[in-house]
Amino acid sequence: VTRIRAVAVHDVRFPTAAAGDGSDALNRGDYSATYVELRTDGPHTGAGFTFTNGRGNELTCAAVRALAHHVEGRTLDELFADPLRFSRSLTADVQLRWLGPEKGVIHMATGALVNAVWDLRAKRDGKPLWRLLAEMPTAELVACVDFRHIDDALTPEEATAILDQGLAGRDERLAGIARDGFPSYTTSVGWLGYPDEKVRALARAAYADGWRAMKMKVGGDIDDDVRRAEIIRAEIGPDALLMMDANQVRG
Amino acid sequence: VTRIRAVAVHDVRFPTAAAGDGSDALNRGDYSATYVELRTDGPHTGAGFTFTNGRGNELTCAAVRALAHHVEGRTLDELFADPLRFSRSLTADVQLRWLGPEKGVIHMATGALVNAVWDLRAKRDGKPLWRLLAEMPTAELVACVDFRHIDDALTPEEATAILDQGLAGRDERLAGIARDGFPSYTTSVGWLGYPDEKVRALARAAYADGWRAMKMKVGGDIDDDVRRAEIIRAEIGPDALLMMDANQVRG
Repeated sequence: VTRIRAVAVHDVRFPTAAAGDGSDALNRGDYSATYVELRTDGPHTGAGFTFTNGRGNELTCAAVRALAHHVEGRTLDELFADPLRFSRSLTADVQLRWLGPEKGVIHMATGALVNAVWDLRAKRDGKPLWRLLAEMPTAELVACVDFRHIDDALTPEEATAILDQGLAGRDERLAGIARDGFPSYTTSVGWLGYPDEKVRALARAAYADGWRAMKMKVGGDIDDDVRRAEIIRAEIGPDALLMMDANQVRG
Repeated sequence: VTRIRAVAVHDVRFPTAAAGDGSDALNRGDYSATYVELRTDGPHTGAGFTFTNGRGNELTCAAVRALAHHVEGRTLDELFADPLRFSRSLTADVQLRWLGPEKGVIHMATGALVNAVWDLRAKRDGKPLWRLLAEMPTAELVACVDFRHIDDALTPEEATAILDQGLAGRDERLAGIARDGFPSYTTSVGWLGYPDEKVRALARAAYADGWRAMKMKVGGDIDDDVRRAEIIRAEIGPDALLMMDANQVRG
């Protein structure tokens, strides 16, 4: 039996704004993370976090502490016996729901706690979380989803049908991921606040490191965007994928 | 010149859950308020607050503190020279906007600060806020509204036309409010967690006190709702207004 004894909250800050790391057309903040550890009486700790692109991380830390009593003292078996009830204990805490519900600071804190519980379960079961979810029986997976706000668009029965359909070829796909990994991209080459030569050096290094998909930020000055895109394309060649993200800025 | 020197934040708590004060079909919390005082170098302080139906008020207090630097050191004239810029400095603080933006804890804190600034202006101008707004020239009023998220439904020009149309009869309406007050209702008679005899006594007292409109909470057990409605109607007679609020609970 894995019982959660305490929730430790770490307020982690990175001074990213100074050099423009993480900057885009809307944001230039000091990255920070509310890092949550579930301490248990067993061999594992559960880890989860929520990320904010800016200061004010003390708010999400305080929100995790305000919600922590919903997991402290509970066992994993209790929480997963009714996963919906567990997640709703966080999203509909009668003393905290006016601070959200299900939005902003309190939503982010809920995510950190829910993810930490899932992380703890995956560790207990001895497999990565992606495999735990991919191998989970359909009925169990559907029982984890709160359909309260979406059942006009998707019912549990429809979700079940979609997931059951996805069972075809699942084993081959799992073997493929285990063998080849999962395709991914890097955003680190093209933050909006980076000077051109930094973009060039980072794109070159990322390509040499094996990356074949890169994302750049756009949405500031159009001529700057074009020039930076040319720099990256020149470094990664015609076949690699170049993606652009304007972060909701209107032209 | 009225300059804001400091923002004082008070964490005010009321143990309302115990007796069911404020309870409805969804909520039974300990009311709390984040009470904000703008201290100035002049004779006035600006007061604003945000209210939460529950514990966790430390989150909105912390959010006000995180935003306070946008008003500290500023003069009222500066803030109202471009009210949209002022409100956006709070809703789009580049270091805090990922905590919202414009929702939940950070939104509530923004409201407390914006309201405190308006309160300070009304005090400086020597009139109640409702009169300040009612007498404000249309262009100035429209300039205070952020149309960013609503201009597909309402443009500044359309808002101007609506407000200008409302100028007809304004002076008579203002005189009427000054003479008769503004019609209002009380919710205090019918919180869902109150026993019948408390509802009866409160309805009777409110009617004797001059109230002619009462709101009760419904949405729990239908027979309870009917019985409680009968009690209130018996006390307030056939002519007073009885309103019902199910607080989003589905039947």
